Amino acid sequence: MAGSEEEVKLFGSVGSPFVIRVQIALKLKGVEYNYQEETLGSLSDTLLKFNPVYKMVPVFLHKGKPISESLVILEYIDETWKHNPILPSDPYQRAMARFWSKFIDDKCVAPAWKSAFMIDEKEREKAAEELFEALQFLENELKDKKFFGGEEFGFVDIAALFIPLFKEVAEFKLFTSDQFPKLYKWSQEFYNHPVVKENMPSKDQLFGYFKARSATLAASRK
Amino acid sequence: MAGSEEEVKLFGSVGSPFVIRVQIALKLKGVEYNYQEETLGSLSDTLLKFNPVYKMVPVFLHKGKPISESLVILEYIDETWKHNPILPSDPYQRAMARFWSKFIDDKCVAPAWKSAFMIDEKEREKAAEELFEALQFLENELKDKKFFGGEEFGFVDIAALFIPLFKEVAEFKLFTSDQFPKLYKWSQEFYNHPVVKENMPSKDQLFGYFKARSATLAASRK
Repeated sequence: MAGSEEEVKLFGSVGSPFVIRVQIALKLKGVEYNYQEETLGSLSDTLLKFNPVYKMVPVFLHKGKPISESLVILEYIDETWKHNPILPSDPYQRAMARFWSKFIDDKCVAPAWKSAFMIDEKEREKAAEELFEALQFLENELKDKKFFGGEEFGFVDIAALFIPLFKEVAEFKLFTSDQFPKLYKWSQEFYNHPVVKENMPSKDQLFGYFKARSATLAASRK
Repeated sequence: MAGSEEEVKLFGSVGSPFVIRVQIALKLKGVEYNYQEETLGSLSDTLLKFNPVYKMVPVFLHKGKPISESLVILEYIDETWKHNPILPSDPYQRAMARFWSKFIDDKCVAPAWKSAFMIDEKEREKAAEELFEALQFLENELKDKKFFGGEEFGFVDIAALFIPLFKEVAEFKLFTSDQFPKLYKWSQEFYNHPVVKENMPSKDQLFGYFKARSATLAASRK
């Protein structure tokens, strides 16, 4: 394998929220890395070798060893570069951060995807209802905190970036300041965070990613 | 809330593999706990208060604070009682343990469930194919190791207990010593581990759980 023993490399696709999670974590830690752009639907042999299970970005490479799954990568980054912690130090708060991040992946990301891109209207409506219910849980969890973990931007905020990004592309009517005032306020704090600002793709890049991802998903269902 | 500040309590249902995961972890750590049996389909108000999101067992209670999601509970237990570690100490090995445990939940548990209990034959066959493919990845991952993490019984073994338990109930023809010799050998090592032996439900209890779970799932689809 080329590159030094200490090389940090990220295989991503511009506009992928899962990849942006990793980029934000690396930026928070100040870790320099090489970036390799992958084309959805035509992934490199290296990517497929590193992630034979899911055949997806992101793949994170450190000291020649690959890791996939964005939340798993975030935990690795937090354990490897210990300054500027992403997870809280208290075991119960850590458990809550893991719980809500998993909740976001299981209960928000999948229905958000369906409610934005499914062709069948009934399925789309059902997904929108599921998403509405899930966002209500997140709204309640935010309480009056600035970020999910409190004053500090952290693990759950990074996991939840899917929500404002998706909103930008799909223009959900669901997610308004009236219905989810706390999530709305959070999304503003989120966008205002300096590390987030630096790492946000343009709207065109986001659209490009969602279109390509939607096409590869449709192809996999055939 | 009743009970002392340090009270450890587990809300479970006999025969639930997710609950057994937590019981095995507590046994490995030698942590004493109170157990409260919950009836699927008629959960207690306390359980619903502690797990309003998923309305499921297990719920783990420590110092009056509830945690749900079995893998999140395992990480909490490992961080709170540090002796007899369940996760490896090396960050990369920890990432791999998290990756494979998530893989088991996403790619094995759901299709195993469907292939055993779905009524529609086409869906059942599709799920069986998915499960076969997923088990192949686990077979390759085991290599010639005694347990998933090597010589020591750990996180992924606990996560993977779903596989031998499911096999016992559903009597998969998929999972034979011929097709998956390493998984087969692992499942024997698994059953021979003293902590596993002590915590295994009877076949009747397993059947009871799977039947009840299947009924509550069917009811939720209506």
